[in-house]
Amino acid sequence: MNTLTVVKIGGNIIDHPAALHAFLQDFASLGSPKILVHGGGALATGMLEKTGVPVRMHEGRRITDEETLKICTMVYAGWINKTIVAQLQHAGCHALGLSGADANTVPAVKRPPAPVDFGFVGDVSAAQINAPALSLLLAHGLCPVFCAITHDGQGGLLNTNADTMASAIAAALSKTYRTKLLFCFEKAGVLANPDDEDAVIPEITPSYFAQLKEQKIISKGMLPKLENAFAALHAGVAEVHIKHAGNLRSEKGTKVKI
Amino acid sequence: MNTLTVVKIGGNIIDHPAALHAFLQDFASLGSPKILVHGGGALATGMLEKTGVPVRMHEGRRITDEETLKICTMVYAGWINKTIVAQLQHAGCHALGLSGADANTVPAVKRPPAPVDFGFVGDVSAAQINAPALSLLLAHGLCPVFCAITHDGQGGLLNTNADTMASAIAAALSKTYRTKLLFCFEKAGVLANPDDEDAVIPEITPSYFAQLKEQKIISKGMLPKLENAFAALHAGVAEVHIKHAGNLRSEKGTKVKI
Repeated sequence: MNTLTVVKIGGNIIDHPAALHAFLQDFASLGSPKILVHGGGALATGMLEKTGVPVRMHEGRRITDEETLKICTMVYAGWINKTIVAQLQHAGCHALGLSGADANTVPAVKRPPAPVDFGFVGDVSAAQINAPALSLLLAHGLCPVFCAITHDGQGGLLNTNADTMASAIAAALSKTYRTKLLFCFEKAGVLANPDDEDAVIPEITPSYFAQLKEQKIISKGMLPKLENAFAALHAGVAEVHIKHAGNLRSEKGTKVKI
Repeated sequence: MNTLTVVKIGGNIIDHPAALHAFLQDFASLGSPKILVHGGGALATGMLEKTGVPVRMHEGRRITDEETLKICTMVYAGWINKTIVAQLQHAGCHALGLSGADANTVPAVKRPPAPVDFGFVGDVSAAQINAPALSLLLAHGLCPVFCAITHDGQGGLLNTNADTMASAIAAALSKTYRTKLLFCFEKAGVLANPDDEDAVIPEITPSYFAQLKEQKIISKGMLPKLENAFAALHAGVAEVHIKHAGNLRSEKGTKVKI
């Protein structure tokens, strides 16, 4: 079984051109097959402000109305995705940018409007991923580069969580490949103390995760990331790591295990 | 030899959701293989205004500085491209959105800064098109949908003329397919009188074109479109038509012949 590497790169790295460039060089030098999923970064918020679209949040999560969806699609599927693809092509990686609508690779289900109406937000699951379409691209040496925009199959686009998308894609392809999932971001890994970059927890199991949650050691943003990591492992992904984008090719960071 | 249809859809149609929707239904029902190339429309100009990026023109042509390139890439490769792809997928057409950077399908050369510096504008030619990559997608039942953003192979994106891109793509694939190129827009064809939609010129040959130019019957915007049409025919494209988007599936419009 061939090894497939699925890498999620966080929005904070995308906001820093030098860090993004260095990361893309490292990503290009990884062995194939591989898939990149990128987050959004602050550019969308900046564009929303510039164009006068009010930013609406519910408990820290963005509500995506029609104008917000338009701006997010412009920024994620347009500028960020194509900038990354052009840089990867220059670095010798045969990148092909995709949203979930393209080749129907990632169909999603619009989140029900109750209890909270998040608007044009789509939820994805491993079972819905178009694995044959992705396998075809991978088999021909292409490297899919996903933004987290999906579609509902009825002609509508949806804003999707990039971590969940990476987890679902890795899980869906774990029947065909031995799949490694790497969540890369601006921190050194899952930290035992959020202010200490040296306090990286080397390994997290479900029981240790329960304990860390109980002790409130894991921060809010890290909870869904770890839940996505465990979901991927339960769905057949062979390895999941959470690490700094600058450590893509090293063993540093947190290994998530079941 | 299989017949391939390459359709260019103009920006004026894209600006009208109902007209675009009707066109995409017709396009979806065309036989495969097929490729769609779309123009930009007024949305980019609106976004440039909203975000305070000055619109700079030289003899009616846009100068693409860094901020303009960013907005154009957002609008063309992001919102317009993904909206079209999602609608085509819903209409049963297996669309895959692309910029020229994706899978290195359309490399371009940045236009020299003299005599006029148009900024981040890329020129394309049939010889540069990555025909094997496109043939691979077509052979697997996919329908490439191009926005007119390309790349320089050095990591940089470039704004490109969509008519030229459609012409170059059709020419490059005419070695593998019997290729038909259709320029669809908001007019009934090439008009002998720009104010009379019934005055469609049914057929234009190079000598007739010279005569129409001499008599100043052909408007400014139509000249490069016809030059692209003749270039495509000389490069091996079997048929070129210029027609109204609403007549995609009928014989109406102007046939360009050599």
